Amino acid sequence: MPAADGRSEHRDAAPIGVFDSGIGGLTVVRELMRQLPNESIIYFGDTARVPYGPKSPDTVLRYSREIIGFLKGQGVKAVVVACNTATAHALPALQVENDLPIVGVIQPGSRAAARATRSGRVGVIGTQGTINSRAYEKAIASVSPGAKITALPCPLFVPLVEEGWLDTDATRLIAREYLQPMADAEIDTLVLGCTHYPLIKPVIGAVVGRSVRLIDSAEETAAETVAVLRDAGLSHEETDSARYRFIASDAPEQFLRVGQRFLGCTIDRVETVTLG
Amino acid sequence: MPAADGRSEHRDAAPIGVFDSGIGGLTVVRELMRQLPNESIIYFGDTARVPYGPKSPDTVLRYSREIIGFLKGQGVKAVVVACNTATAHALPALQVENDLPIVGVIQPGSRAAARATRSGRVGVIGTQGTINSRAYEKAIASVSPGAKITALPCPLFVPLVEEGWLDTDATRLIAREYLQPMADAEIDTLVLGCTHYPLIKPVIGAVVGRSVRLIDSAEETAAETVAVLRDAGLSHEETDSARYRFIASDAPEQFLRVGQRFLGCTIDRVETVTLG
Repeated sequence: MPAADGRSEHRDAAPIGVFDSGIGGLTVVRELMRQLPNESIIYFGDTARVPYGPKSPDTVLRYSREIIGFLKGQGVKAVVVACNTATAHALPALQVENDLPIVGVIQPGSRAAARATRSGRVGVIGTQGTINSRAYEKAIASVSPGAKITALPCPLFVPLVEEGWLDTDATRLIAREYLQPMADAEIDTLVLGCTHYPLIKPVIGAVVGRSVRLIDSAEETAAETVAVLRDAGLSHEETDSARYRFIASDAPEQFLRVGQRFLGCTIDRVETVTLG
Repeated sequence: MPAADGRSEHRDAAPIGVFDSGIGGLTVVRELMRQLPNESIIYFGDTARVPYGPKSPDTVLRYSREIIGFLKGQGVKAVVVACNTATAHALPALQVENDLPIVGVIQPGSRAAARATRSGRVGVIGTQGTINSRAYEKAIASVSPGAKITALPCPLFVPLVEEGWLDTDATRLIAREYLQPMADAEIDTLVLGCTHYPLIKPVIGAVVGRSVRLIDSAEETAAETVAVLRDAGLSHEETDSARYRFIASDAPEQFLRVGQRFLGCTIDRVETVTLG
């Protein structure tokens, strides 16, 4: 017989909530599926209000609160903010306001970069909003105060990835143009500070050269989530029980079509939920 | 002494309302300022919810209704929907629901293309949403039923323009890639079906060649607005009285910075209004 408060009895079987402004956060889901194969996941992509990058911090915080409220209503045991802009503008407030573990995408990549660099010269690339927020610079400096950080926005990378131009002449030309200052700054570590960028990692890697270590925020965020769930006693050990739900706030067909490229596997169904 | 219903007494002095999902519609404002120098204009850029292109028709209609409601509250005498996506998804409903002239950006360019073509082979480029809506194809076919229309989405043009990459190698490379099917289709007329595209008209013109006539929706829409105001007896003849207001739903600094490139002149101030 289930207890009146049945949810807390099987809390470790509850899903992880993951959200992003659109489909980019699916690269984080892909890593979560790889590193936490027993965990169920509910993904919310705010495709009705994408992109968050150019929006004001207040607006991004408001949207993030709405989504966390929705995910908590779905019974999630933890939340991954798989969006750099939302992490930059909203994570501290969300962590204070909610009583469940919330992992962002900026701290894990920043710590990995601080560990990886030998010269202390670290590059960060992201959307205009993420770079303007200086969130990576602050996070890296808090771990590695002497680091010299070169942070640059690369606004065309997201539309190139969404267009599927992952390895074209235009993509390489634009990457060379954007990343030239990174060569000038002699970085030895580059943080991919946007969830879209793992899809063009080969092009970025070829442009910056093999001597530069690339830090993939999606991988690092998934590793952080493993540790957070374990520390909170929320890991789910039962195998073959993982379930995945994908929810978009608009245009689910496009989510389905483009999202599979990000996720690296098939999406059967995308639900639509309107917020705000 | 003003009449109780003072507004209708001087209705011709009331401003024209213009709206777009973001800043692209400022190319239409630029043309309105040139062709209707006596008219005051209130521009609303829905920068909090840009872009409309990937959003569903229902969502775009809902946003458009909110904006028209706001503009009517500001006392506008007519509205120009300076957004191809909003025109495609919302114009017919907006025209039925409101008792003032509403001009869209699709009909004027379509009629101009039907007039301009000799061979009947017309190209249309725009965002994914505009092209998916087939609104230009329907509009051109209604004037010129025998026309053979080649319609292609060019999703990277908007971010290239917003990034200010108006005449770079990457822009030319991407334009050649996108527009090759237009050469194969032997078009003699190409409709720029997105308000951002006039800023890269020289690159587009060079790629398609001088034998192809480019139709600029912004110019044609302003010309249509001249005719509509005149027919409705709403033209304002008094000179030196034009006033311009620019309103954004988010991030007014970015609107100010990038918007001036679209408008072709200085913007003194951008107000912020939140809708929805």
